[in-house]
Amino acid sequence: MCDLRPFLLLIALITWLFLAPTLLASKCGINGFPLVRNINELPQSNYGREGLSHITLAGSLLHGMKEIEVWLQTFSPGSRTPIHRHSCEEVFIVLKGNGTLHLASDVHGRYPGHPKVFPIFANSTFIIPVNDVHQVWNTDNNADLQIVVIVSRPPVKVFIYEDWLMPHIAARLKYPYYWDEECFDTPVRDEL
Amino acid sequence: MCDLRPFLLLIALITWLFLAPTLLASKCGINGFPLVRNINELPQSNYGREGLSHITLAGSLLHGMKEIEVWLQTFSPGSRTPIHRHSCEEVFIVLKGNGTLHLASDVHGRYPGHPKVFPIFANSTFIIPVNDVHQVWNTDNNADLQIVVIVSRPPVKVFIYEDWLMPHIAARLKYPYYWDEECFDTPVRDEL
Repeated sequence: MCDLRPFLLLIALITWLFLAPTLLASKCGINGFPLVRNINELPQSNYGREGLSHITLAGSLLHGMKEIEVWLQTFSPGSRTPIHRHSCEEVFIVLKGNGTLHLASDVHGRYPGHPKVFPIFANSTFIIPVNDVHQVWNTDNNADLQIVVIVSRPPVKVFIYEDWLMPHIAARLKYPYYWDEECFDTPVRDEL
Repeated sequence: MCDLRPFLLLIALITWLFLAPTLLASKCGINGFPLVRNINELPQSNYGREGLSHITLAGSLLHGMKEIEVWLQTFSPGSRTPIHRHSCEEVFIVLKGNGTLHLASDVHGRYPGHPKVFPIFANSTFIIPVNDVHQVWNTDNNADLQIVVIVSRPPVKVFIYEDWLMPHIAARLKYPYYWDEECFDTPVRDEL
């Protein structure tokens, strides 16, 4: 009786060689996606932030978006965004859970100052005024906070604050922002 | 015994005179809303389209949005959008239900032509390429189709087609689009 294992191994290897570029491309490539995508099957990551699950529904790098980006983010109990601001419009829709929005709206001070705190909840929506310093917290001890985040002018350029008294000019710029950063290919320089 | 009815009527009238501007403003005014808004309490309308419920979550007229608009729309069984196109980015998130996306992607023809049909379903997302002619249908006989719609460059300027063979140059321009049109005040002309 012949041993088929080496033969099967060879077939598996050849299959992988053919499929690998497609699989890798489908995570990053603009043309690697079906038009209608099942959100459950999209890549998600915490991008180094504890308690976060981020999915880019429509992105600058992934889908060639030029004017809007759309994210689906889930924060585990107690987790939160950094204190930050950005020069773009931003809309939130809360799908599940409860939390708080911290918002410093004084645009003339040298630092954000003490923020106002607003409860946010499932089936609520809010708009962050351009450049206002803000932070979103999941304050629920038991349930995830799931939000749809929409921003204009991608890729987003974020200024991050260590606390609410940090001067605006000391805030650390993160640009480009890290979602999907691994998908960025340095363009080949065209000497012509 | 004295009759208090005229007195009570007067109080009701005075209260209405004070409250009316606030109530009207809170439907249309940029400053009439709380920052975090309960979607269940937002005004909704079918805007003359059978089977539609439209809520503007973040809008050009209502909230002063300049770069993005966000809508929550519910289509009853069998209802659908017109066949249309627009020169902006558009992202859909399907929250509930099932339906189809009809999309004509040939940008070089003189009319849209026969569209491709894609099934859409709860927890799916898709992006409409700028200017592609499209239509969304609720094809489910029993359940509503609920979607979040995000567009750039508000207010949206829509070209509407009677059928897929109508020439692009015959499509009817609707601009400004009718959501929240009642909130539009002609600006007072400043002669200086």
